[in-house]
Amino acid sequence: MIASFLARSSQSKTRVATKLASPITGLRFKSTGSKVKRIGFVGLGNMGLPMATNLFNGFKDKADFIIYDINQKTTSNFLKDHNTDPNNKDKVKVAKSPLEVAQEATVIVTMLPASQHVEGVYFGKDGLFGALSENHLVMDASTIDQSMATRVAKALHEKGAKAIDAPVSGGTGGAQAGTLTFMVGSNTNADFELAKPYLEKMGKNIVYCGTNGNGQVAKICNNMLLGISMIATSETMNLGVRMGMDPKLLAGILNTSSGRCWSSEVYNPCPGVQENSAATRGYTGGFGMPLMAKDLRLAVNAAVDTKTTVMLGAMAQQLYNQMAANKDYENLDFSAAYKWLSENAK
Amino acid sequence: MIASFLARSSQSKTRVATKLASPITGLRFKSTGSKVKRIGFVGLGNMGLPMATNLFNGFKDKADFIIYDINQKTTSNFLKDHNTDPNNKDKVKVAKSPLEVAQEATVIVTMLPASQHVEGVYFGKDGLFGALSENHLVMDASTIDQSMATRVAKALHEKGAKAIDAPVSGGTGGAQAGTLTFMVGSNTNADFELAKPYLEKMGKNIVYCGTNGNGQVAKICNNMLLGISMIATSETMNLGVRMGMDPKLLAGILNTSSGRCWSSEVYNPCPGVQENSAATRGYTGGFGMPLMAKDLRLAVNAAVDTKTTVMLGAMAQQLYNQMAANKDYENLDFSAAYKWLSENAK
Amino acid sequence: MIASFLARSSQSKTRVATKLASPITGLRFKSTGSKVKRIGFVGLGNMGLPMATNLFNGFKDKADFIIYDINQKTTSNFLKDHNTDPNNKDKVKVAKSPLEVAQEATVIVTMLPASQHVEGVYFGKDGLFGALSENHLVMDASTIDQSMATRVAKALHEKGAKAIDAPVSGGTGGAQAGTLTFMVGSNTNADFELAKPYLEKMGKNIVYCGTNGNGQVAKICNNMLLGISMIATSETMNLGVRMGMDPKLLAGILNTSSGRCWSSEVYNPCPGVQENSAATRGYTGGFGMPLMAKDLRLAVNAAVDTKTTVMLGAMAQQLYNQMAANKDYENLDFSAAYKWLSENAK
Amino acid sequence: MIASFLARSSQSKTRVATKLASPITGLRFKSTGSKVKRIGFVGLGNMGLPMATNLFNGFKDKADFIIYDINQKTTSNFLKDHNTDPNNKDKVKVAKSPLEVAQEATVIVTMLPASQHVEGVYFGKDGLFGALSENHLVMDASTIDQSMATRVAKALHEKGAKAIDAPVSGGTGGAQAGTLTFMVGSNTNADFELAKPYLEKMGKNIVYCGTNGNGQVAKICNNMLLGISMIATSETMNLGVRMGMDPKLLAGILNTSSGRCWSSEVYNPCPGVQENSAATRGYTGGFGMPLMAKDLRLAVNAAVDTKTTVMLGAMAQQLYNQMAANKDYENLDFSAAYKWLSENAK
Repeated sequence: MIASFLARSSQSKTRVATKLASPITGLRFKSTGSKVKRIGFVGLGNMGLPMATNLFNGFKDKADFIIYDINQKTTSNFLKDHNTDPNNKDKVKVAKSPLEVAQEATVIVTMLPASQHVEGVYFGKDGLFGALSENHLVMDASTIDQSMATRVAKALHEKGAKAIDAPVSGGTGGAQAGTLTFMVGSNTNADFELAKPYLEKMGKNIVYCGTNGNGQVAKICNNMLLGISMIATSETMNLGVRMGMDPKLLAGILNTSSGRCWSSEVYNPCPGVQENSAATRGYTGGFGMPLMAKDLRLAVNAAVDTKTTVMLGAMAQQLYNQMAANKDYENLDFSAAYKWLSENAK
Repeated sequence: MIASFLARSSQSKTRVATKLASPITGLRFKSTGSKVKRIGFVGLGNMGLPMATNLFNGFKDKADFIIYDINQKTTSNFLKDHNTDPNNKDKVKVAKSPLEVAQEATVIVTMLPASQHVEGVYFGKDGLFGALSENHLVMDASTIDQSMATRVAKALHEKGAKAIDAPVSGGTGGAQAGTLTFMVGSNTNADFELAKPYLEKMGKNIVYCGTNGNGQVAKICNNMLLGISMIATSETMNLGVRMGMDPKLLAGILNTSSGRCWSSEVYNPCPGVQENSAATRGYTGGFGMPLMAKDLRLAVNAAVDTKTTVMLGAMAQQLYNQMAANKDYENLDFSAAYKWLSENAK
Repeated sequence: MIASFLARSSQSKTRVATKLASPITGLRFKSTGSKVKRIGFVGLGNMGLPMATNLFNGFKDKADFIIYDINQKTTSNFLKDHNTDPNNKDKVKVAKSPLEVAQEATVIVTMLPASQHVEGVYFGKDGLFGALSENHLVMDASTIDQSMATRVAKALHEKGAKAIDAPVSGGTGGAQAGTLTFMVGSNTNADFELAKPYLEKMGKNIVYCGTNGNGQVAKICNNMLLGISMIATSETMNLGVRMGMDPKLLAGILNTSSGRCWSSEVYNPCPGVQENSAATRGYTGGFGMPLMAKDLRLAVNAAVDTKTTVMLGAMAQQLYNQMAANKDYENLDFSAAYKWLSENAK
Repeated sequence: MIASFLARSSQSKTRVATKLASPITGLRFKSTGSKVKRIGFVGLGNMGLPMATNLFNGFKDKADFIIYDINQKTTSNFLKDHNTDPNNKDKVKVAKSPLEVAQEATVIVTMLPASQHVEGVYFGKDGLFGALSENHLVMDASTIDQSMATRVAKALHEKGAKAIDAPVSGGTGGAQAGTLTFMVGSNTNADFELAKPYLEKMGKNIVYCGTNGNGQVAKICNNMLLGISMIATSETMNLGVRMGMDPKLLAGILNTSSGRCWSSEVYNPCPGVQENSAATRGYTGGFGMPLMAKDLRLAVNAAVDTKTTVMLGAMAQQLYNQMAANKDYENLDFSAAYKWLSENAK
């Protein structure tokens, strides 16, 4: 499957994983043969809440749910919104701890802000780890460093559980629309196939990235290249405009030449060049400065840890960090790098 | 025409200027009504020689030629190769100076290494300028700074001559194949239309970039963005590989995600990712380190002159400059940035 | 005292803390009035071992010792070397855990490689924390991030213990010679005064840096500025030499002008400029590339955490990281940045 | 003398060239034996005017003067101010061209803004060059690129004239006070000695830098190192302050440690740290952003031309360029880098 996946990659622009004929059969683990009865979800924040909602809507006829979040208001709201079937008052349960989630559910998704939260939820007091077994499939959608992701996977594998890392791109918009891209690290193709039916309820593209931890690698690599390209495009558009070129004309030339990139073609940071870009709507919405700064911090630290030189990556990190520290920019889309460059030269 | 050109830009990927029904009619200048009798070409170096050859082959039935180069061996070779028509021994002439070119030809192309050579050929002793008039159409294909390009155009316009700047991309390969891209700065659409039939014999894409000087702006903008993107792609591929990812798999993911750029999709710097890339053939051929360093110098100095901040552009300039200074890299394609990054960490 | 310390700073170049008339009286803590009976030391690595030796030699007539290191060979060697008094066979004891150190000693020094080791020794199983009380004075000489340093201090203060952070500069040479500089963070002047007599046995300069955690801040700030200045000096010397200047003459000019810095005056990276520099002896010994890379990582991450922009700091981090990843440079002094710059342009 | 100069350099902080016993004897050129009758000065701008004034005051008893500037108001004002001796109405003359200066004066100083002005004044129509001979001593105090400086010297030597390059540091304040530092490039020690008596009227330190052109090299090297150090000091002070340290305390620690540099010790960019710094008086006066940006442009282009890598130099150039482009910063001292860094993070 992995081989065929690679083969297909040159043909299709957006590689949606093949829908299995009967995805639910994937739920019968070889070791037990039992059917999933309950799906667990830990972490219902800005991203996790819409993801959990989509997962619930996709599987509510086949399984019950158990959820956990440190914020009890979030979980009680979810309960109120989704426990609506009069014949099945217990469709959704709120757990008192991650441990309880692992005790009741055999398929578990976690979506947490950073490495230290993942460590706490998995290995802390009353953590998931205490009840995991060979009956469990666990998918961590958090964006964390590779070393924590592989540590989680290793610990779970020692208990016989299936584990994948599956960080996402697509933002809160993609989470709500169910169109996220999942970048999946999995030591075995079988685990990847088992996870897919669940991820497909929350996302559109389920991309295989190699062994456990490589989902995280793919994500920070892509976002580092994106972060650099956006500043490079901003510098270039700003230079051209200040030298007297029409921005639309310049963008058109770049986009048919060797300078083109996603940031120049699809998401041009110069206002007015594209009708539906963040730039044209005042840099509202989109992918915020602090998020790009966070991903670049992961990338640069991973580079230092692996003795890899990333001059431009480090420079981009500083520039997003600078904008994230400025109250006029911290809430803007990351393409406001153009605004920063053009307005500082006043 | 310019408006319609812009309108089309969203539909076609490679915008080849429309072939005029009878391009040669473009040669009848309003002011004189005379037909072109002789085409001049100054600067027959690595790029200029194949360009002049293509231009000759395209127009030899309609016009004679006069050429000039500081290197007399080059011009006498050209003479030997092309003055082969027994009925017209004088098809090609070698001029003693640029001035003589301007005295005999009304359509002139110049292709010179840098600003100081342009200054000498146009304004120096026995320069073109001495004989230019309203009968002349002059196309400068050199890559020089915008200020020199506009100075040339202004001086020519004052004499009534038509002048465009038309730097190229595509390298010596494109020059030989006649598939160069010309980025054209022209104050009037009429001049652009007059120049096109000639440029089309030497190139495939004739791109309108705005007023005089903007051909140069477009070129250095594109090449700055390209130069940064190539290093960014190299850093990213190297990081992913050192973190354990398969390079083809990583490239596939980037190229279907927001990190994609020309350097990752078409010209990936990691050997083996693409069959026909410079990287896969040992970084031979292609666009050399000193050329990229030269273009980035033009870009960064233009930025300083216009008070534009180009952090990543300046960093990229230093990195190409560093490689161009190393005898193991100076003759390699600019995508050897990947080799530099991966081999320095030995 | 702090005020007078600051007042003195403009007068003396090297500010050695005033020797107390009878330092040992400092050991009588107000709360107990008891005299120190035993001094503890945790972490006897390359730096810790010579520091512990100097501390032992300075206090062996007044106190007994208890030591702990994860490497048992180190502690048994220390025991063999120092338990030589036939009348006091128990002068030095080896503890089975940090906890035992805290149970037996009231003055404790820790010297550990990084934040995670500090966390383990203080808060892990059988850690120091289990036995700390208002009778303890604890000095952590490790170089770690500010947040861990303040977390340690806060936890110790809650138990009533005195706590200071006191990272060092001076390297293994300074550790052996007892000439280290300690940069001390302490919430109270009293604790600073209590700690001084011990630190003075291991170092020459005991510098007050403000509240707990600020010892760490001072160290990474100094080393970031040093790391940038060394590369800047290397770039400058290399540029001058390549433009034809005599390196000694250039260094002499810089050092009497506004470009001078410690790296140009005291530790010039160009071989031959100074007789006793690391550069002149082939960049052997000194402060290694990985150490500078580690300190810059702390600095850049601290900058990101506090939303501070450090463009040059981030660039310097990448450059030391690049050299630390190269087997020809990883074991050289950090001033080999000059060698890197001059030899890459071959 | 040069050797002894170098020997002395380790002893004295400010190396003032030894006063010759009778400097005026230096004026008797071997070839003619004639005494200087007239001193010429070309370029009476912000720097040149006070320099010419000091030179006039120092030599008015021994020589007459002839001056030239493109701005006639400047020269007529100088005439009015200095032609006050009723017995010698012709003490100062205003020349109609640089040529006339060379025709009348045998000792000439030029002080011009940039390379192109030097080219014009020396080699242009009615330039100095037309009348230079073996009787002339010419000192160019302009800050220009090395290649122009050596071109000027070579051309003058071919005519038998003595030529030195002598760019200055010290600003308009130093020009008025006569305390400038001259960095002198001279092919022979004899020419250096001839020039010294004149330079000593305008400056305090006359520093020998090697052969012709090396005065320029020394200046851009020093200013590149200074420019980087100032930003590095600003980043460091800002980081420490944002992490909670008292700025005076931090500066005191840096200045007794390996991080110290002229920018931290003498000209600290953090307001309030030093009583008389530009920072403390609101960054007024001092060395402006555009001047530092200009010198860094010369340095970075020299680096590119000599294939020297200057990563930090290029980054510093961009940062000063960015501030010089901002109307709130363009008129501030270059140490306002601290203000930029601290205020952008609002």
